[in-house]
Amino acid sequence: MVAGRLIGVGVGPGAPDLLTLRAARAIEAARVLAYPTLAGAPSMARGIAAAHVGAGVEEIAIDVPMTPAREPAQRAYDEGAERIAGHLSAGRDVVCLCEGDPMFYGSFMYLQARLADRFAVEVVPGVTSVSAAAALARLPLGAREGRIAVLPGTLPDEALRAGIAAHETVAVMKLGRHFGRVRALVDSLGLTDRATLVVRATLDGEAVVPLSEAPEEAPYFSLLLIAKDTDPWL
Amino acid sequence: MVAGRLIGVGVGPGAPDLLTLRAARAIEAARVLAYPTLAGAPSMARGIAAAHVGAGVEEIAIDVPMTPAREPAQRAYDEGAERIAGHLSAGRDVVCLCEGDPMFYGSFMYLQARLADRFAVEVVPGVTSVSAAAALARLPLGAREGRIAVLPGTLPDEALRAGIAAHETVAVMKLGRHFGRVRALVDSLGLTDRATLVVRATLDGEAVVPLSEAPEEAPYFSLLLIAKDTDPWL
Ligand SMILES: C[S@@+](CC[C@H](N)C(=O)[O-])C[C@H]1O[C@@H](n2cnc3c(N)ncnc32)[C@H](O)[C@@H]1O
Ligand SMILES: C[S@@+](CC[C@H](N)C(=O)[O-])C[C@H]1O[C@@H](n2cnc3c(N)ncnc32)[C@H](O)[C@@H]1O
Repeated sequence: MVAGRLIGVGVGPGAPDLLTLRAARAIEAARVLAYPTLAGAPSMARGIAAAHVGAGVEEIAIDVPMTPAREPAQRAYDEGAERIAGHLSAGRDVVCLCEGDPMFYGSFMYLQARLADRFAVEVVPGVTSVSAAAALARLPLGAREGRIAVLPGTLPDEALRAGIAAHETVAVMKLGRHFGRVRALVDSLGLTDRATLVVRATLDGEAVVPLSEAPEEAPYFSLLLIAKDTDPWL
Repeated sequence: MVAGRLIGVGVGPGAPDLLTLRAARAIEAARVLAYPTLAGAPSMARGIAAAHVGAGVEEIAIDVPMTPAREPAQRAYDEGAERIAGHLSAGRDVVCLCEGDPMFYGSFMYLQARLADRFAVEVVPGVTSVSAAAALARLPLGAREGRIAVLPGTLPDEALRAGIAAHETVAVMKLGRHFGRVRALVDSLGLTDRATLVVRATLDGEAVVPLSEAPEEAPYFSLLLIAKDTDPWL
């Protein structure tokens, strides 16, 4: 028997019509779907894909605990990967849904790492939250010789400061409880006027706010765009 | 009369089914389409979108000369923007096609810069060539605290070297005639084993090659992924 394929499908940043045609078809064809859920919350990726999920599909929700320790999340991915492996071994493809692009800070990478030595893997790229945020804010990410950095807000101060200083455009991801610290850092670099907070891009409650007018808190699904380039693009 | 909207539509990296549902609908609804062509060559973006272009659509091809001097290209965008402005003023929306994501080194930014003060602008984000290349190579771009840099291969040596050295993952774009120089730089940093050349991702002639086995030349539609992170993602 031929084993099934592990197919990582990026479903884009949130709006259901930002799925690609390829992603929509892969989900429609799926008999087995897998996706992560965070600490029991409904899966964002499953919600985005909902209109394309057929009836009678087998669903594997991988519940990832949000603890500071890494082991509980690792065990959740271990178990999820074994459930997926069962289907793959039985010859069934498994479509793994991933918010945004699978290779861009996506949960799919943890499943691929556990299964790629045993099974064929395919990846359907998706629109990232950074592209969605730039589109909403109508802010060029890069042009000509412009350099772009993407930095997780969870990095230590020095790494964030150096990264922000060295690039024409910077996207800071994973703000949440790091937002106050990131904001103070951007301010200390004199870049507050160059920074735009994009909250829940293409989702309910979406907002684009200059950092100088941003509230004290930023949710997990938000990112900061810092654009220093004054090139008029003309 | 209400003026038309300028709508920048990302059509993704090359495969027609990597268009988003939103992009497909915007193109299907378009009465006026604009797109750049490089020095008279057929437009890549127009080719990707072809299946969705209706009959009787007015098309504005903006032919951008490839000269070292910037002025001829600037004049081409000036003239293209004025042709687009004529339609917008007459109340017709204009859909501008852009390969990949419009805000990610996309030609759309040059049109937006010339028209956004007079007309409403919307942007439909697309899948970037970097996401497509990572999907093909099944190479994680970033996870957890990993930093990503995107660097044009046209940068001077020092900027390239510093950028490559400072990030867990780097994508070098716009290789073409800079490929030999970029390759020598990557080699001098001891990173040749960590680098993968992705040529024409999702297009005819697509290839994923370890840098150590790459031919001497790389076409314009190619990029280098350098991944230093040895995190097993487990
Ligand atoms: C684990 S990463 C997943 C990124 C995703 N794979 C992508 O391609 O965008 C989660 C982070 O992405 C960003 N993010 C994801 N979706 C977002 C959205 N709709 N609006 C703003 N930021 C978003 C936030 O910074 C969040 O903390
Ligand atoms: C002017 S930029 C346009 C980028 C595009 N807007 C995007 O979102 O990917 C052109 C560069 O993008 C990269 N590129 C675009 N399409 C590609 C593809 N299908 N395969 C590999 N690289 C590509 C190459 O590095 C090329 O030099």
